[in-house]
This record gives sequence, C-alpha cells and structure tokens, in this order.
Amino acid sequence: MALKTVEQYYQTLRAMHPTAYILGERVENPSEHPLIKRHCAVIAQTYAMAQEPEYRDLLTGESKLIGEKVSRFTKLYESKDDLMTKVKMMRLLSNKTGSCYVRCTGLDMINAGFIVTYDTDKKYGTHYHENFVNYLKYIQKNDIAVHSGVTDVKGDRALSPSKQSDPDMYVHVVDRTEDGIIVRGCKAHQTGSLCVHEVIVGPTRRLSQDDKDYAVSFALPIDTRGIIHVYGRGGLEDRQLGGVDIGNINYSKFVPLVIFDDVFVPWDRVFMCGEYEFAAPLVSLFADYHRQSHGGCKCGIADVLVGAAATMAEYNGVANVSHIRHKLTEMIKTGETMYGCSLAASIESKKTDSGVYAVDSALANTSKLYEGKEFIEAIRLMLEITGGLVGSMPSEKDLRSPEIGHFLEKYLKGVPGVSAEDRMRMFRLVEKLGFGSSDVMSHIHGGGSPEAHRLALWRATDLEARKKMAKHLAGIEAQDIN
Amino acid sequence: MALKTVEQYYQTLRAMHPTAYILGERVENPSEHPLIKRHCAVIAQTYAMAQEPEYRDLLTGESKLIGEKVSRFTKLYESKDDLMTKVKMMRLLSNKTGSCYVRCTGLDMINAGFIVTYDTDKKYGTHYHENFVNYLKYIQKNDIAVHSGVTDVKGDRALSPSKQSDPDMYVHVVDRTEDGIIVRGCKAHQTGSLCVHEVIVGPTRRLSQDDKDYAVSFALPIDTRGIIHVYGRGGLEDRQLGGVDIGNINYSKFVPLVIFDDVFVPWDRVFMCGEYEFAAPLVSLFADYHRQSHGGCKCGIADVLVGAAATMAEYNGVANVSHIRHKLTEMIKTGETMYGCSLAASIESKKTDSGVYAVDSALANTSKLYEGKEFIEAIRLMLEITGGLVGSMPSEKDLRSPEIGHFLEKYLKGVPGVSAEDRMRMFRLVEKLGFGSSDVMSHIHGGGSPEAHRLALWRATDLEARKKMAKHLAGIEAQDIN
Amino acid sequence: MALKTVEQYYQTLRAMHPTAYILGERVENPSEHPLIKRHCAVIAQTYAMAQEPEYRDLLTGESKLIGEKVSRFTKLYESKDDLMTKVKMMRLLSNKTGSCYVRCTGLDMINAGFIVTYDTDKKYGTHYHENFVNYLKYIQKNDIAVHSGVTDVKGDRALSPSKQSDPDMYVHVVDRTEDGIIVRGCKAHQTGSLCVHEVIVGPTRRLSQDDKDYAVSFALPIDTRGIIHVYGRGGLEDRQLGGVDIGNINYSKFVPLVIFDDVFVPWDRVFMCGEYEFAAPLVSLFADYHRQSHGGCKCGIADVLVGAAATMAEYNGVANVSHIRHKLTEMIKTGETMYGCSLAASIESKKTDSGVYAVDSALANTSKLYEGKEFIEAIRLMLEITGGLVGSMPSEKDLRSPEIGHFLEKYLKGVPGVSAEDRMRMFRLVEKLGFGSSDVMSHIHGGGSPEAHRLALWRATDLEARKKMAKHLAGIEAQDIN
Amino acid sequence: MALKTVEQYYQTLRAMHPTAYILGERVENPSEHPLIKRHCAVIAQTYAMAQEPEYRDLLTGESKLIGEKVSRFTKLYESKDDLMTKVKMMRLLSNKTGSCYVRCTGLDMINAGFIVTYDTDKKYGTHYHENFVNYLKYIQKNDIAVHSGVTDVKGDRALSPSKQSDPDMYVHVVDRTEDGIIVRGCKAHQTGSLCVHEVIVGPTRRLSQDDKDYAVSFALPIDTRGIIHVYGRGGLEDRQLGGVDIGNINYSKFVPLVIFDDVFVPWDRVFMCGEYEFAAPLVSLFADYHRQSHGGCKCGIADVLVGAAATMAEYNGVANVSHIRHKLTEMIKTGETMYGCSLAASIESKKTDSGVYAVDSALANTSKLYEGKEFIEAIRLMLEITGGLVGSMPSEKDLRSPEIGHFLEKYLKGVPGVSAEDRMRMFRLVEKLGFGSSDVMSHIHGGGSPEAHRLALWRATDLEARKKMAKHLAGIEAQDIN
Repeated sequence: MALKTVEQYYQTLRAMHPTAYILGERVENPSEHPLIKRHCAVIAQTYAMAQEPEYRDLLTGESKLIGEKVSRFTKLYESKDDLMTKVKMMRLLSNKTGSCYVRCTGLDMINAGFIVTYDTDKKYGTHYHENFVNYLKYIQKNDIAVHSGVTDVKGDRALSPSKQSDPDMYVHVVDRTEDGIIVRGCKAHQTGSLCVHEVIVGPTRRLSQDDKDYAVSFALPIDTRGIIHVYGRGGLEDRQLGGVDIGNINYSKFVPLVIFDDVFVPWDRVFMCGEYEFAAPLVSLFADYHRQSHGGCKCGIADVLVGAAATMAEYNGVANVSHIRHKLTEMIKTGETMYGCSLAASIESKKTDSGVYAVDSALANTSKLYEGKEFIEAIRLMLEITGGLVGSMPSEKDLRSPEIGHFLEKYLKGVPGVSAEDRMRMFRLVEKLGFGSSDVMSHIHGGGSPEAHRLALWRATDLEARKKMAKHLAGIEAQDIN
Repeated sequence: MALKTVEQYYQTLRAMHPTAYILGERVENPSEHPLIKRHCAVIAQTYAMAQEPEYRDLLTGESKLIGEKVSRFTKLYESKDDLMTKVKMMRLLSNKTGSCYVRCTGLDMINAGFIVTYDTDKKYGTHYHENFVNYLKYIQKNDIAVHSGVTDVKGDRALSPSKQSDPDMYVHVVDRTEDGIIVRGCKAHQTGSLCVHEVIVGPTRRLSQDDKDYAVSFALPIDTRGIIHVYGRGGLEDRQLGGVDIGNINYSKFVPLVIFDDVFVPWDRVFMCGEYEFAAPLVSLFADYHRQSHGGCKCGIADVLVGAAATMAEYNGVANVSHIRHKLTEMIKTGETMYGCSLAASIESKKTDSGVYAVDSALANTSKLYEGKEFIEAIRLMLEITGGLVGSMPSEKDLRSPEIGHFLEKYLKGVPGVSAEDRMRMFRLVEKLGFGSSDVMSHIHGGGSPEAHRLALWRATDLEARKKMAKHLAGIEAQDIN
Repeated sequence: MALKTVEQYYQTLRAMHPTAYILGERVENPSEHPLIKRHCAVIAQTYAMAQEPEYRDLLTGESKLIGEKVSRFTKLYESKDDLMTKVKMMRLLSNKTGSCYVRCTGLDMINAGFIVTYDTDKKYGTHYHENFVNYLKYIQKNDIAVHSGVTDVKGDRALSPSKQSDPDMYVHVVDRTEDGIIVRGCKAHQTGSLCVHEVIVGPTRRLSQDDKDYAVSFALPIDTRGIIHVYGRGGLEDRQLGGVDIGNINYSKFVPLVIFDDVFVPWDRVFMCGEYEFAAPLVSLFADYHRQSHGGCKCGIADVLVGAAATMAEYNGVANVSHIRHKLTEMIKTGETMYGCSLAASIESKKTDSGVYAVDSALANTSKLYEGKEFIEAIRLMLEITGGLVGSMPSEKDLRSPEIGHFLEKYLKGVPGVSAEDRMRMFRLVEKLGFGSSDVMSHIHGGGSPEAHRLALWRATDLEARKKMAKHLAGIEAQDIN
Repeated sequence: MALKTVEQYYQTLRAMHPTAYILGERVENPSEHPLIKRHCAVIAQTYAMAQEPEYRDLLTGESKLIGEKVSRFTKLYESKDDLMTKVKMMRLLSNKTGSCYVRCTGLDMINAGFIVTYDTDKKYGTHYHENFVNYLKYIQKNDIAVHSGVTDVKGDRALSPSKQSDPDMYVHVVDRTEDGIIVRGCKAHQTGSLCVHEVIVGPTRRLSQDDKDYAVSFALPIDTRGIIHVYGRGGLEDRQLGGVDIGNINYSKFVPLVIFDDVFVPWDRVFMCGEYEFAAPLVSLFADYHRQSHGGCKCGIADVLVGAAATMAEYNGVANVSHIRHKLTEMIKTGETMYGCSLAASIESKKTDSGVYAVDSALANTSKLYEGKEFIEAIRLMLEITGGLVGSMPSEKDLRSPEIGHFLEKYLKGVPGVSAEDRMRMFRLVEKLGFGSSDVMSHIHGGGSPEAHRLALWRATDLEARKKMAKHLAGIEAQDIN
C-alpha cells in the first residue's frame, strides 16, 4: 500500500494535533480552518491525481528503494528522466490548482538529504544514511506528505549563526541525550506546514566550525511536542474567511512561522549533527533542486496567468488587438523560459556517488532568476491587460444586493455573451494571482533570493575556461596573471 | 475666506448625505466608515498643510480669477511656475501621506475644462465658459474639494459608445429640459469620491458625431440625488476594518464605482452638451495634465518606497551590502525620472488662448510610462530587499498574545536595537505599499493605460522632422514618398 | 570515405570557380581573398575537429541513411539526442572560433527539406523525396559543405511575392524545360556562400496560390553559371585587408548577396516546384531548427564575451569589484538561457512521419528571443566592463612606431604583469565582438526577426487550454464566447 | 570681435602645428586628414550656426564677464536659463550633424573650473581664479574652441595615482620652476583634440594627500611642445579614407590619446597645483554638467535614430505596422527621458558662491543612466526595424560597377518611388549610427561610466529623509539605529 487516497490523506491529517496559532488565537483543528483548508485541498490533489489513469504516470513512479510504485513526491531522482518528469508533473499540478502543493519542498530535501548523508557517512563512518534510508522507506510506503524546514529567521543577517547576540536565531542543538537531541530555533516561510504530516529540517546556510551546533538535520511529525505553528498573515484573507470574492475558488496557500521550542528528536531521525562542512552541500543541493522545481511549478502558474489575461482580454473585447497579443506572448515567453531551463537542468544533471542525480546548477539557477524578476513583470502585464478594476471591483455581496445588484449586472458586463458575474469572477482570479502576497513573495524569494541565485550561477561557471577561449582567439599567449 | 480649515473640511463633508454602498450594505455616514475615513484623512492633509507656514507657499497661490489666495488644488495653471509648483506640492504630499489626495484629479479637470469651454464658446457662441468660470469661482472661494469623473465602464471596448448593445455603458444625456439635462451611466475608478464635495464629469474618449449624446460635461455635489457610490473591494481591507496590521497607519485610499441613475444637472453646471469634437481635446488635456501630476505624486511615493526599503535593509543588517545599494539606486532613479520628466513637461508648457498653460504632451506621457512599468519594478525591488516575510508576517495579534507573544518578540527582531514590533510595522508598511491593490493598479492604469501613454507620445512627436534630419545627414535629396 | 580532411576541403573549394564581386571588383579566387579566407578558416575547423579524437563524437555521427559515420553537419536528426548533440557541438565550435561556421544553415535545411519532400510526395505522388535522398547521400558520402538560401530581398515588404511591381523580388521559376527549371531572383544574407560547395535554396515565407512560381526549392553548386556572389560590406574590414588590429586573429565571417541570374536547375536537384502550400512548413521547420541551432552557437559566443570581459576586468584591475561580477553573471545568464531553452527544445522534439525529429517550436523561439534582445545587452555589458578605449584604441601600427611605440607600451598597460600589447589585443577582440556588424546583425535578425520569433511562439501556444485552466479555477462554467 | 566665422575657425586651426600620429604615421596638417576633417566640419557648424539668424539666440548669449555677445560654448552658466538653453542648443546641433561638436566638454570645464578656482582662492588666498578669469576672457573674446582633458589612462584601476607602479599613469606635476610647471602623463578619450584650439586639463578622480602632485589643472594650446596626439582607431574608418559608403556624409568624430611628454605650463595658465581636496569638486561639477549636456546632445542623436528608423520602415513598406510604431515610440521615449531629466536638472540647479549655477546632480545623473543602457537599446531597435542588410549591404562601388550595378539597382530597391541608391544611403547612415564605435562607446562611457552615474545619484540622495518618511507612516517612533 504505497499510495494514499484523498480520504486517507485527510483522515491521517486530522488525526494529528499540532499546536497552531492563527491571528492571535490557538486553533484546535487547523486543517479545517477557513484559512488552512484550501491549502489542504491543493495537497489533496497530489493524492487524487495519483489515482487517476490520465495522470498516474506523471504523479507516481517505481521506487528502486522499496521496489514499489510510490508517489513521485517521495521518489528519489534515480535518473534524468525522474527529474524531467517532476518538472512536468509540477507544471500540470499548477495548471490544475493555480497554487502550492508543498510536497516538492519535501521531495527536494529527500534527495539532497540522501546524497549528503551518504557522503557524510563515507567521510565519518556515521550512520546518518541508514537513518535516512529507513525514514525514506517509511515515507514511501505510507505516502507521507513531507515539507522541508530550511529558512531560519536569521536575526542580523550580517552575522553568522554563532555570532548573533541571541544564539537561537538559527535552529540549533541545545542538548544531546542518549536517546536523541534537543533543538531550538524558528523557521520562517514554512509553507503549508499544517497540511502535511512530517517536516525534514536542515540548515539554511554555509557554516563554519564555530557554527557546529547549527549543523543539524532531522525529521519529525508536525505535531511533535514543542513545535508551534504561527500563521503568517498575507493579503486577501478576509475573502477566505468570508467565503466570497475568493478568486481561486478552491485553492490557496498559507505560510507560517514554525517555532522549535526545545523539541526532542530521537537519534534515528537525526541526519546531521555537527558535521558543519556538510551544511553547504545540503543547502546547495536542496536549493538547486528546488529552483529547478520552481521552473515547472511557476511555468504552470504562468499558464494560468496567460489564460486569465487572455480571458479578460476577450471579456473586454480586445482579444485581437496587437499590443495585447504582444503582451501575452511576453508572458508566454517567461513561462517557457523557466520551463525550458528547468528541463535542461534535468538533462544536464549528473549522477552522484549515492546514485541520485544532481541537477545542473547553472541552468537551475538561470531558470529561477526569471521567476524573481520577469515573472513579476508577467503579473504586471496580466494586470495591465485586465484593467484597473482588479483593484476596485465591487464585491459579490453588492452583486447579490437587492438594491444595487441590477446596477452591477448592467455596468460590469463586458462583451455580449459574458455575464457580469463571470467577468467579476475572472477579475477576482486575476486579483488573487496578482495580489496574493504569499504567492508573489514566493515568486521573488522562494528557493532563495535572486542574489542567492546569481551567486550560485556565478559559482557554477568556469570563468577560467572562458578567459582561455578569449585569449586564444585574440592571440594572447600569456598565462593568467593571478 | 478662501481656505478651509481641516475642521471645516470634515464639517462640510459630514453635512452631505451621499448614497453609498460598501460590501453589499447601504452606509449612512460613509466618511466615518473605517474603509473610508483614512482616505478622508489624506485629503484633510491638503487643508491642514495649507495652513502651515512651512508648506503654505507650495499648497496655496494667488488666483488671478478672484484675486485671492486659494488652495493650489483649485488654482488655474496661470504660468509655467504653477505647473512646476504643483509637481513639487504633490511630491511633498505623497511623502507625508504615502497615499492619494484625490484633489489633483479635480484640479487637472478644472484646467482642462477651462481651456475647452473657452474654445467651445469661441466656435459656437455658447456660454459654457461663463458657467465654468462661475463654478470655478465658487470652488476657489469656498475651497471645495473636487474630483473628476472620467473613466466609463465601457462595456465592449472594441465598440464606440453609441455602438454598444447597452447605450448606457458610457455616461450620456438621456433627456434635456428647460432647466437642465438628465444623465445616465456609470464611472469607474472614482477614487475618493466620498471624501470630496463635488465631481466634475467629462467624457472618457474621442467621440464622433454618432456619439453626440455622450459628449457631456458637468459638475455636481457628490450627494446629488441619483448618484450612487459603490465601494470597490481591494486588498488588505480587513486590516482597516480590524484596526490592526494596517501598515500605513493613518492613510489609505478607496476606489468606488459611481452610478449616475438618471441624474439631473442644471444648465449652469453643464460645460459640454453635444459638441462631440471637443471630447478629444478635453480628454487629452486632462490626461496630459494628470500624467504630469503623477510624476510628482508617484515620485513622492517612490521616496517612501526607498525609505521603507532602506530601513528594512538596515533592520536586517544588510544596509551596506553592494547589491542593496545598487537596488536602492535603481529605485531612486525611477522616482527621479518621473519627477524630472514631469518638471520638464511644465517648463516646456505652452500658453493656450484661454490663458491657461498646457503641459508638453511628449514629456508628460514619457514620465507616466515609467510609472506603469518601472515603478512596479521599484516595488519589486523593495519587496526583494525587504524579504519574504512581507507575505507571511504573523499578526500584531500574535505579538500581543500572552501565550506566544514572547516568541515573536524573540524571533522577529533583526539587528540589535530594533524591536520586533518596529520591524513588524515596517514589514506592514512595505506590504501596504506592495500589495495595496488599488494603489498598484493606479500605478499601472491611473491617468490611462500605458498604451494610451504610448499613443499620446507617438502623436506628440514630429516624425517628419526627424525623417528629414536623417535624410539630410545621409545625403538623400528625394522628398518623402507618401 | 565520408569525412573530408581540411586539405580536401580547401582543395575542393579552390577547384570551384564562382562568380564573385568584392567592393566593386570581380575576384578570381575568392576563397583566398583576405576578406573571405578567415571565414573559410572557420569552416575548415568543422573538418579539422571532426578528425580529432577529443571532439570526434560531437562532430560526427552514424548516418542511418548510408550506414556510415558522417559529419554531423550532414546528418539527419534521427533522435532527440541528435538535436541535443548538435547544440553542444555548436557551443564548442563557437568557443573555438568565436565566429560562424555556416554549415548549420545547410544542416537545418537538409532536415526541413527531408520532412517536407516526404510530405509533398505523400500528398501528390511526386518524386521530390527521392531526389532529396539521393542528393543527401551524395552530400554525406562526400562531406560536402552546404549552406541554405532562404531570405529573399523582398522589395516592398507589405506585398506578397506575386504582387510586387518587379516580379523578381523573390526567387522564382521563370521557365520549365524537359531537363529542369530556370530560376531568377536574389537571396540576401547568404553568409559564407563562397566558403562552401553547395547551396540549398527554399522559399522565405508562407505562399498562396498566386505565388505558385515562388514555391521552389533546389540545390546547386555555388559556382553554377548565373549565380553571382556580391560581397556585403560590414564593419572592420580594413583590419582584415591590412592584416593588423584584427581582434579575432584567425576567424571572421562575411555576408554576401547571391543573385540568381536565370540559373538552370536540373530536375533531380529540384525539391519543390509549385506546391505553394508546402512553403510554410518548409520555412517554419527550417526556422525552428535554426533558432534552436542559434541557442548552441550564440551561447558559445556568449562564453567568449564573458571570457573577454572577465579578462579585461582582470587587466584593468577590477576583477573583484562587485558590480563587475554582477554584470558578468548577467552575461552568463543570457548564454545559459539560450542554451537551456535550446536543449529543452531538443528534448521536447517530436518524431515526424518521415522519421526525422522536429524541435519544439515554443522553446526554440523562446531561446532565440533572448538572442535578439538580451544578447545585445550582454555585448553592451562587455563594452561597459571593458571601457571606452574599445572605440578609440590606437593601432598596433602606433605600437610598432619607433617614434611613439614606447609611449603606447607605457600608457596602455594595465595591471602589472600584462603587456600593453596583450591588453590591446584583448581590446581588439572586444571591438570585433561588439562592432563586427555582420555578427551583431545576425544576433538580431539571424533565423528571422524577433517579431517572427514572437509570432511563432504565439502560434505554438495553446491559448484555449490556458483559458480553460483559468476559468476552471475561477469557477466559471460558461464556455468560450467565440 | 567675439564671434569667429567658419573661415576664421579653419584659418586659425590650420595655423597651428600639433604633433599628431595617425595609424602609425606622423601627420603634418591633421585638420585636413580624411579621418579628421569631418570632425572639424562638425565643430565648424558651431561657428556657422552662431551667425545664422534662425539659430543665433540658441548659439550665442551675452557674457556678463566681458559684456559682449559670445558663443554659448564659452559662456558661463549665469542663470538656470543658460543651462536650459545649452540643452536645447545641443539637441539642435545633434539634429543637424548627428555627431560630436566637442566644445561642450570645454564649456562644462570652464564652468566647473570657474567655481572651483573661486573656492580654492577663498580657502588658500591663491590666484587661480584670477588666472582663470583672464583665460576665460581671452577664450570669450576670441571665440576659441576648447576641449577638456579629464580621463587619464589609469593603469591598475584598483590603485590610486600615487600607488601605481608607474607614477605617470595619471597626469601629474614633475617639476616646478619660477615660470611654470612641467607635467607628464596621458589623457585618453580626447575627442576631437585636433579640431580645437585649446585644452583645459583637470584631474579625473577624487585625490588624497599622497596624490598631491596629481592635483593639477591648466590650459594650453593643443600644439604646445610635448603634447602628442595619437589617433584612436575606431570602426568604419575605411569609409572615410575611401570617401564612399560613409553614412553620415559630412560629419564624423575621432577620439585620440593625448600624451603630455614633460610639457611646460606657464603659471598664468595653472588653475590648480597641489590642492588635492579640490580635485573631487572639480571632477564632480564637471561630470554633472557633462551628464546634463549629454541629455541634450544624445536626445538630438535619438531624434536622428528615430528619423532613420522611420525612414527605413517606410522604404521597406512597413511604416504602418503596429510593432514598428511601438518600437519607434520606445525610441522616442528614451530620447525624451534624457532630454526631460536634463532640462529638469537645469531648473533645479543652484547658484554657487561664485555666481555660476550648478546643476541638480540627481537629475543629471538620472538622465545619463538612460544613455548608458536604454540608448543602446534604442540603437538595437533601430537596427531591428531597419533589417539585416545593415551588416551586409554591398558597397556603392558595386552599385557603380558597369557589370553588376544594374543588379543592385534592381534588387536593393524597396517600395516603389525609392531608388536603391537612396535606400543604400539610409542603410549606411543606420550603420554609422549603430556601429560607429567611438560614438557607441561614448553613449556608454561618455561623462563617466554608468557605475559612476549610479554612485553620483546615490550620493545626491538624502536617504535619511526618506527613511524618516517611511517610519512616520509606519508609526515607528524609534530613531535611526546607526
């Protein structure tokens, strides 16, 4: 039984009792809360579509590890094809939900952790990889939804973890016992943490010897004692709370802080504990995978942006105007660029000693750079095409008003054949896509900030080889001066 | 008594009884409603600062029309200096409020209307200009807050007003009586309509003979019978309703639809009625003025964006990082570009026959083109500098929670010396600046869409002169082939 | 004997006697002319490297058609891998030569022609495919260098071929005999036409029934009677003529007009003759292939730009300045984007009925769009990094002057350890890369203009599917209104 | 007699005997050399048009210093209007010549020198200002053409002048005598140095006490003993040497190195000698003026780019295509932006203690930033509109060939009514505008590099004021933490 049904997903989720706060209140069954449930609905799609014949091949695959068909969200990248298929699966899921299915963060961390625990054990004779493999088998066999906990709150960003005035600004080990370790700290941007079963935590940056206690990786259920989820307040929440003017009617996301208030981790769930030089490879492998993942995910969102803008152009009567076509084509280009570079990062991946494939860093980071800048421009183009009412459309409550509803039906219609209601709905979808702040911030900062992508691209480039090419063509024989 | 005090502004506003609907409900005293009152507070600043010695010279000026000192928001552009001073006044007001003071739309319409009624009377011997001058004197003497009603809802944008399947998609005259006219239709994007005393309405596009009934301009109090204001629902409203996590704590804006349900206009308030060939000049003059106005207004907002981003960089400990400086400089550049071109549009203005100065169209539209595209990029840079928490900061309610407040105080602080509370407040301001949908849509679509600005720039350019230059330099003697 | 040696390439080339004019003069042995020979040297590299063990696998492959190892420049795209390997081969060749090896145009036309002749015969029972296969076998067996003749001079671009005032503005059939056809017209942008053995000609645009005579495709040796090559004058020619200040010391390109002055083509070399509906597929297949080719070629040139800029930064002493690294990273990004989308276009290719693989049009055109715009920006960045002397470096003749040479040695040196001579050489390479007008125009217009790429991308996109996604998410049930 | 005629300009120029090397050869009468004479022709226009009634007001003005009408190229900025009029004069001159008239560099240095010598004398009681005023009177009275010598060759850019391994990499004082000083070094980018009468030299960067000897400013005739002009080799020179395919048929520019080989400067021509802290203000004032100057100059060139592109669109038959209009509008926008910010920098100028007005630095540098990046994009758009033949047009020699001329007349024509010859001429103008390397490098690096402009803009911005605005709006009371 490797694949959970939607019902099993919800059942298992509801059986958990995480500590959760939303807008200042403790919440008992967070997965049913109006601000959380639409995010669970996105993740539920990863279970539902895995059962549908049409999508099964994209959403599942044979795991060499356990010799069974597993969800692709728990499967190792055992080939270039696995990496490519992930990208296509993500484009599809974004097309279907227009939102965030979270499990890719777990998947990318699973693969990064697999490689790094392998390398750590090889160097130190530790047993992290054994722990990791056992954990992964459990995940695969039970089709567990996992997310990853990477970004620390960071305090003063100019200082390394051990140099902070408060030592807890990065998650770290505060105690070690025979049975396990105690960790403290706080992870930000923990998208969908209340909609999954487990979290795999890892460091967020390169560490030095002084930061040894910050070199820690582990996995835990999200309702482990001491883990506190604090809802992050984004835009357009009142729409979900009120159930009207929602935009994307079924799907949404939320992004909490997760506090680790002296949380106990048993040793068999520990994958790194002090081996600080492996923090950089773990972060970097995870980050490259995740930037490649974004290429599929956000291209799928770009498809929705294009669809929404094209529909609005049609509703407004300007579908055939040349500058509208030009703008739509620019939006399409941005999506295809992310997708293309992401596919290419898969093709150019290399097999690591662990057997898992690592993506091409240059191409993965190139893909992501377009998300951080041009994707926002694509949103701007969608807003430009759609028109100013995105920011000032009266509510559906007004449309339902017996006193003024007829005015809105009259004045908010576009071309003949389209009702004001449908047009208003599409305006609301555009609003959600353009002003859903947790989504937009993910476009800019998800998988690291644009500067992190630039740095990774810079490091992935063989500059010396290029300088040699130029000198050869110019007829310069002198060697490099450095 | 030309200048109202803040108290007089509020008093007169509260004495009015407009028909207003907000989120499906009829609202009695809209100017006190939590979604409206912060917009009134912005406009109140235009009255308050006019009284302050430090700002008086910017916010007021001598009216040649009535020979008294009047608010600059009611003053004709009687010199190039008037146009420049307006730009500077607007930069200042944006610095002080970070929001929208609306009266510039009225001001720009006052000037456009003055010129066009002058020209219409000259051609037809009508008395629109006399009406207009009388009205303007009333406005100036009583320091009335006026906004302009331009953008119609438009229906099928591919069709002219008279070709729409529903004739009411553009405001038009449905009846003429001895005493006045009856108008019907609906204006969109009526920013702040419930915070001002009067509206001046004009057509939104070039019109042909068939559209004669749509060539109508007039002024009315905003609580005239038949005028219905319907609140447009933007983002982040729950913050204002709840009074927490507001961002810009005192100031905000709202953008309603305004329906004209068979509204009567007395003849002395009518400034155009059928002279369709004057619709284009009116729209075009108003639009050019308003694009020049934006140069001052949005540069002032850009100053705030820069300040917010620089503060966040400081709070995060990265103020001296080179790429942060580069990004702040790009943001500064965009603000200065809008400001510079807007000032230049003033310097290059030309005196019209009416005596009022008309801005340089090429430079005014150039300024606005940067707002539509690069200003959004400036926002993106602010979001990039600030960090992902903009989209997922826990609420101040969490900070106040006895159970978890201490966690937030601990984990949401940045560099030493800055409290989590202050940092959260700045995140909220950034959120408001980046995700306040009615603001952002105004950056893109205010004063017309970017394509309208391009078209205006194209029309303002003497292409033949440029072709001649090129031919001369290339040694081509042949004349133009067309 | 499928692979020619460099000597055989030159031998066979010199045995041909094309009609060539350079700067107003008839030239007898054009391949030895100083303005042509460096272009031959580039093509010679395609022969030389095919013999080198290190590069053999990239530059050659097994032809299923003749069951022999052939140059990759004559090989059909018999798999996705063939398309990917081409991209990599081209990146390598550009790295090695910094210039244009022309044979890719022939290769892309070979593949397009193979598919289209197959489809034409299937529809009409003609024998074009048999002709084509025989011709291709000859090409493969003799390792013939082929280029393609596509772009017509076009006259008035607003008119189709048959509507031009002069019927010869597009190559067309002027007579048919028992033995073959007579063609007339003129092809522009015939890069390297005097450095190859053969040309395959095809139409340059979609044709209608009226344009039937323009639907013509054929292959001929470049010295066929009636074919006249007229050298196109680009920049920096005096450097090649004088043999000093050359920049790229061994390699260059030239781009002539080729006039077809009533040229006879025997029937077995005719691949299309009147089947106008096949003009569009031929152009479109060729164009998509060629845009994908550019992704490899120009990424390879981008590597050289990066190397040249990085070397100059080093020579100037600013290699570690942060904005220099930022700019180099932007240049790298552009190269990787073209490369990545080009590889992805290969992976997403589809097998046609003929057995040959057709690239993904959306991704191929996306790749090319970056060349047309961002590659020029990469050049600008290189020029910015390098410094103003790119446009005003004294000549090597001055360096050699006994009177002032010592001044230049003194004043044109950069950081210690780099001679003025080496620094001047690198400036010259940058100059060649930035101001070699035939190269730069190829970046913008090669493989069609940017608007052609946009149109192709637009056509390759399933807009209806995207509209459906958006409607589904917004909860709109109404079908499309069109 | 304040204004020279064209004849007097040439006469005086020919009376000078500068030491000049061109492409390795000593040249006796450089102003008549085919590579120099077209640059003289540009400068001649500054004399010619000053005599024409139509342009007189723009090109001349009343000097308060000598109480006479002088060339605007020698006039102090005695008002905001002087600064604005300069911008307009420069736009006009660029329109008329499409090239570089050099004297603006002298003019901007005259004004910077005037202010700085004033301030130096005030601090030190020196007599530089007296020297300067006397020199300026001479310049004004004799309408002398002056250029400025600023940019040193710089050697290792990471090191300050006094830290270079060779002390001569920046111009410096090597000896002081009773009569004057001896200077040594080399200035790069000395545009048009052989077409003017005098040079004013100043330091190129901020200097510290160790660099005291590099703090030197002076004026000399360009044929002073020890001054050696070495022609800088740019692109398209063979066209000027051959007198065919020239593009801009009458006007061009050249950019030499100028070596100061132990040159004697009499004390009354010395304006700074050791007062190192005044190097920064001199450079910065000069640079800001010159960036403001570029706004007029390059906007005038942009007009020509627009004219050339629009003409080519017409010749090609695509003048009414929507994307062509969009591209032309983008080009127009870039020109207007530079112009607008440049005018605004004039309006916002401030009067210095010396009486001369200093431009607003933020706006002047903003203007220039568009030249460095967007002006190159405008060129790219021109090239895109024009078409690929820009890089490969056959020579006029081919058009004149009795053998193939008729082919070119036939095949290179565009729309009916335009001869191939005219079309070729316009292609050549476009080529000159796009590939004249000394022009293009000036767009990028003239008046300092883009990073210098960014730095100046950053320094000109009051960041603290902006942070205060943001804190005020966010309700943060804490003061700045620094």
